[in-house]
Amino acid sequence: MMNCSKKKWLKAMALGLFLIMFQNSIAQGHPRLVLTQKGVKEIKSKLGKVPLFDESLAVVKKEVDAEIVLGIEVPIPKDFSGGYTHERHKKNWLITQKAGVLFQITGDKKYANYVKDMLMAYTKLYPTLPLHPQERSYARGKLFWQALNDSNWLVYMSQAYDCVYDFIGAKDRALIEKDLFKPYADFISIGSPQFFNRVHNHSTWGNVAVGMIALVMDDDELLDRALNGLKEDNLPPGMKDNDGGLIKKEGQKTGFLANVDEPFSPDGYYNEGPYYQRYAMYPFMVFAEALQNTKPDLKIFEYKNGILNKSIYALLNLTNSSGEFFPLNDGQKGMSYYSRELVSAVDIAYLYGGKDPSLLSIAEKQGRVELDNSGMAVALGIKNNLTKPFIKKSIDLSDGSDGKEGGIAIIRNKIKDDELTLVMKYAAQGSSHGHFDKLSFSYYNNSSEILQDYGLARFVNIEQKGGGNYLKENATWAKQTVAHNTIIQNEISHFEGDFEKGNLYSSKKYLYDVNDPKVQIISATEDNAYPGTKMQRTMVLLETEGFQKPLLLDIFQVDSKTANQYDLPFYYLGQMMTANFKYETPKTLEPLGKAYGYEHLWKEGVGKATSSNTKFSWFHEGSFYTMTSATAANDDLLLVRLGANDPNFNLRRDAGIIIRKKNAKKATFVNVIETHGGYSPVSEIALNATSSIDNLELVLEDEKYVGVTIKNKEGISTLFILATSDNSVTTKHTVEIKGKTYSWTGAHYNAVIE
Amino acid sequence: MMNCSKKKWLKAMALGLFLIMFQNSIAQGHPRLVLTQKGVKEIKSKLGKVPLFDESLAVVKKEVDAEIVLGIEVPIPKDFSGGYTHERHKKNWLITQKAGVLFQITGDKKYANYVKDMLMAYTKLYPTLPLHPQERSYARGKLFWQALNDSNWLVYMSQAYDCVYDFIGAKDRALIEKDLFKPYADFISIGSPQFFNRVHNHSTWGNVAVGMIALVMDDDELLDRALNGLKEDNLPPGMKDNDGGLIKKEGQKTGFLANVDEPFSPDGYYNEGPYYQRYAMYPFMVFAEALQNTKPDLKIFEYKNGILNKSIYALLNLTNSSGEFFPLNDGQKGMSYYSRELVSAVDIAYLYGGKDPSLLSIAEKQGRVELDNSGMAVALGIKNNLTKPFIKKSIDLSDGSDGKEGGIAIIRNKIKDDELTLVMKYAAQGSSHGHFDKLSFSYYNNSSEILQDYGLARFVNIEQKGGGNYLKENATWAKQTVAHNTIIQNEISHFEGDFEKGNLYSSKKYLYDVNDPKVQIISATEDNAYPGTKMQRTMVLLETEGFQKPLLLDIFQVDSKTANQYDLPFYYLGQMMTANFKYETPKTLEPLGKAYGYEHLWKEGVGKATSSNTKFSWFHEGSFYTMTSATAANDDLLLVRLGANDPNFNLRRDAGIIIRKKNAKKATFVNVIETHGGYSPVSEIALNATSSIDNLELVLEDEKYVGVTIKNKEGISTLFILATSDNSVTTKHTVEIKGKTYSWTGAHYNAVIE
Repeated sequence: MMNCSKKKWLKAMALGLFLIMFQNSIAQGHPRLVLTQKGVKEIKSKLGKVPLFDESLAVVKKEVDAEIVLGIEVPIPKDFSGGYTHERHKKNWLITQKAGVLFQITGDKKYANYVKDMLMAYTKLYPTLPLHPQERSYARGKLFWQALNDSNWLVYMSQAYDCVYDFIGAKDRALIEKDLFKPYADFISIGSPQFFNRVHNHSTWGNVAVGMIALVMDDDELLDRALNGLKEDNLPPGMKDNDGGLIKKEGQKTGFLANVDEPFSPDGYYNEGPYYQRYAMYPFMVFAEALQNTKPDLKIFEYKNGILNKSIYALLNLTNSSGEFFPLNDGQKGMSYYSRELVSAVDIAYLYGGKDPSLLSIAEKQGRVELDNSGMAVALGIKNNLTKPFIKKSIDLSDGSDGKEGGIAIIRNKIKDDELTLVMKYAAQGSSHGHFDKLSFSYYNNSSEILQDYGLARFVNIEQKGGGNYLKENATWAKQTVAHNTIIQNEISHFEGDFEKGNLYSSKKYLYDVNDPKVQIISATEDNAYPGTKMQRTMVLLETEGFQKPLLLDIFQVDSKTANQYDLPFYYLGQMMTANFKYETPKTLEPLGKAYGYEHLWKEGVGKATSSNTKFSWFHEGSFYTMTSATAANDDLLLVRLGANDPNFNLRRDAGIIIRKKNAKKATFVNVIETHGGYSPVSEIALNATSSIDNLELVLEDEKYVGVTIKNKEGISTLFILATSDNSVTTKHTVEIKGKTYSWTGAHYNAVIE
Repeated sequence: MMNCSKKKWLKAMALGLFLIMFQNSIAQGHPRLVLTQKGVKEIKSKLGKVPLFDESLAVVKKEVDAEIVLGIEVPIPKDFSGGYTHERHKKNWLITQKAGVLFQITGDKKYANYVKDMLMAYTKLYPTLPLHPQERSYARGKLFWQALNDSNWLVYMSQAYDCVYDFIGAKDRALIEKDLFKPYADFISIGSPQFFNRVHNHSTWGNVAVGMIALVMDDDELLDRALNGLKEDNLPPGMKDNDGGLIKKEGQKTGFLANVDEPFSPDGYYNEGPYYQRYAMYPFMVFAEALQNTKPDLKIFEYKNGILNKSIYALLNLTNSSGEFFPLNDGQKGMSYYSRELVSAVDIAYLYGGKDPSLLSIAEKQGRVELDNSGMAVALGIKNNLTKPFIKKSIDLSDGSDGKEGGIAIIRNKIKDDELTLVMKYAAQGSSHGHFDKLSFSYYNNSSEILQDYGLARFVNIEQKGGGNYLKENATWAKQTVAHNTIIQNEISHFEGDFEKGNLYSSKKYLYDVNDPKVQIISATEDNAYPGTKMQRTMVLLETEGFQKPLLLDIFQVDSKTANQYDLPFYYLGQMMTANFKYETPKTLEPLGKAYGYEHLWKEGVGKATSSNTKFSWFHEGSFYTMTSATAANDDLLLVRLGANDPNFNLRRDAGIIIRKKNAKKATFVNVIETHGGYSPVSEIALNATSSIDNLELVLEDEKYVGVTIKNKEGISTLFILATSDNSVTTKHTVEIKGKTYSWTGAHYNAVIE
């Protein structure tokens, strides 16, 4: 479905391309991609005067100089990621790109010669290469086991070539282009349509690789291919890649522009999640920069309301207080805005996005800049004390190219330096890297995980672990619903774990309201994960009386046509402290189930809720946490530990508690997570180590409302009510609870009532 | 057994005490303990001029001012550690001591009034108190559940009283002494002989508490009781405390001086281990300071060759690169030289130990000083730029009062900022806090644990976890041999886990040689842990060719009269990467055994060594590790995980690998731990991720020698030979290995041989 503004744009775009074809005769020298002749002059004139640029230059020089001493190596491709030949070719692309830049900035010919020799070595090698011997990928490369990495190589090598284009004689250029770059670009596009002609981070790299070399070589045909995809690809719709990801939908547009159009929401959220957004940001931004430098009429940074720059802000907001990305969908924990991709993306967004001074504070933390015009602009801004803090507020990021496929709400409460962050996911499937985790959430105390999202089951680029690639457990555990803090019905994952089914739907926002910083709300619904079952989850980050820190209130309502078993897990980190319910710890451990990830959980403890409030507390990284649950006497409470059916020890031995309601059509889970107190092994003093909740009660639930009271130890109650069938801000409501009447306007109500 | 120099000293001591009795008439004002009239004058004259002192003063002032506003509370005692009344009385002693000091330094009477009011409140409360209602302790207190904490209180409150002694009128003083301090001191001594009259950190606190108040009140009888113990205690030898610790040996000397004599080795190692040494250091040092100020003729800092100051150096050396104490015996991980006890100990050791400028670097890191003469001396030293680095070299600390009961070797290899540290324990039992871990070790990469010592099973002062006291699992797991990286015979702990048996023996040093910083050796023997079985463990921190970082070579030889099963566990931390042997992962988990800690281990994997070298690698905190083991084809390899039979989730779910040799009289375990490479989730580049050892071989073993070769991937072999029956440095040796002859002088030989 294409909306009107997009259609208009595409028309304009087609016209633009037409014009470009005829503008190509305009003389334009080299370099032209991320460096320009004018930019290089400016950089040279400022050398020695702009500290962060000079420092970054010195670091890069040292690194490249050390590599030059070692000489050039282009081994016959053989290994997976993490293996020698893979890492060597990867290092080659990284170093050669830098050497090209150093030649431009310093004028030292040793760098130009290094690039030239490197390119000549590849020119000699490339024509001799068959497909890479490792057969695992759906799109094998030649230098690497997957065409994706071949594309990475070309994105960087194009820049290196651009920097030494004039230095290399026309004869050698002709050879390099004929034997290396042209066949290389053809191979990853025409030769690998299942890779090139899709909407995915893979194809983005492929498109950009072809586009970058097209711009250097002034090759219009290649540029068109990069921007608009292959006209013919003969790919059967429904075809999948080796990770189970869909390759082509019926009628799918392809090429770089389609890869901007589709995966980004209008808020800049990328449907695969922040980990892959980070990975894709480099080609998106560097190609946009190159297009801006070579084809300014394209106005690529204004495309789709300036979506590329917006996406950088989305990405920066998708981080915890240490700058680490929330591991939504497939995401490796620890990846952060300190990565090289974000250094260049922040620099480019600064220069081409209106020089927002708050980006400088991120660049300052990164401590390095790109050695190009954008990096110089950032370093200059910092030098001139323009930096302002980048403040992360609560934000609701829509998903879907039209912004109508759910979203991600990030709700933050920051008091002094202490920040609690709720990340609630009610998004679309998330492409091939999506997880079956509708209405799941994770919860942070600064950068410390309170309740975690497991992330991916992969040790990226660590060869010993399955060649550094996705492990079997990514599909059997990490993607499954039970690996997340959300409801599983009858021990079956959402959409039965079927990508095609999941890809048809998204959750829907019901209410996002953060106007009151003390009562920040996200409520969303999901009606398709289990046909016949409606789910609504309402989460409130609540600052209220009688509690040291804000509470997280979680109301999860399920309503099904049939009676089911509902499991709601909470994957806490750290050391369990106490539980107020009786449980048994089995003498031998057995898996919790047989499929959908249940086979990976050991049943460490089995209990039943014994009072109207179940309490479970733990300690993690200096802080205490207590979950209070308004449970029914019949609820099962399962203490689980990851690690069953894990023959290669690929999974972490993390723990969780599962609240299980059986044989119910309707069920409502009400939980409050308290963050409280602290303990240091140096002082050995435990402060505020126990829960301050005296009672948590579901006081109201009908067709129209759900209401909860939280009573603290001093007897003060906080009431929260959500109108569940009318989210208008103007509707007036009146309800009666325990003989008292409450009236308000808008979708929710809260008050201290005693 | 008393050696000659100690006898002499005791004679001198008796004489000294005699003289003191008659010197007491010498006028001596207040304060006199840690502050003196002269010292206060000096401090006042320097206020505002010595930054670290001023900062420390400001912090303490802020803390005390905040407490004064809250008013005085002396609740009726009720709770265990971590509970309200416990923590309140504890806070009272800490704040009141500080308020006393503030009165002296600032002259502000509000502090004096606070101390006075506090003391009057306790004077009113104390006579009404029965024994504390919690009955768990072998020596219950009145304010606290254990007399130990009552003693803590008195050590601090004596100082507070000293500071306001002149401020309080004679009439109130008489009341305070009659109703509070005298009965208090009598209760923890005469009233609690099983606590007061032993050699233990508990009794040290008791002795010092009585001694401190004795010095304030000029009470010679109390002082004698403090220094020399109770003459009569009617305690049956063999009596034990509630943690199973021995209370009294036959003929045991008691009192403060006995507590200095016996637990400290001549090198300053305290037999309970660094965690309790840290705890005991405060009373040791603060009482020594008070004795030096009031009874300088005693020359307490020269006692036993200056053992008190020496012990501070031992303690500082018993830390990893972050200043955290090695968790030998019962020790809570994370406790460090940043604790308040070490702040005062370092300050006192500086002032009374010759102003060693390297102590200033520790004080700088601590970032605060005591508000007394010693703290002022330290702050002045820092202000005057006298600081020198405190360099931790390899050190061998003897155990036992005569230094002949084994010891602890700490072997360090530091290259630039990277330090590998081996902590090898061949000590005596370690009093009631000792573990059954003869010849065990732990191994660190900077402050990151490579192979861990579990520490204790206790959450100190966290009330939810067993009242903050020792947990059952401390005895069933943490103390047991299988919880350590050492050999267990037939699944039975050393000395059958019997304290009395263990307390009779210590391991023996065979060789400690760190002359060559590249080949640092500790070798020790243990002949009593299993009657009829001789064990020798030789560990070498070895810097040799072809390896990125130093290797840890571990040769563990066992020789028994009978055929046994030998288990050697290695408790690694982090994520298992690969194993080169085949193993099964059971479908249901069962405990590894039934007793001696085996009941707490789940059998996660069961395999057999399939080649002459077993390899097992893991990743932890950015670094890769590989253990290469020269195994026999018959060896069992068990992958274990802690957590079985742990109904209250008191144990961490840590992992280990156990090498098991069955039905053998003699057995030799040869292992090498490699530290290599690195990985960051931000760069996603894995460097040097695999082992560089091509072959590890036991090439020589007979009655006299053991020899090992380590061959790297480039084919270079390093040979290490130890003469196992002659540790003389002058003996000449000749051996033949694989047709080649090697000759050398001294106990060991090493060379690159190919």
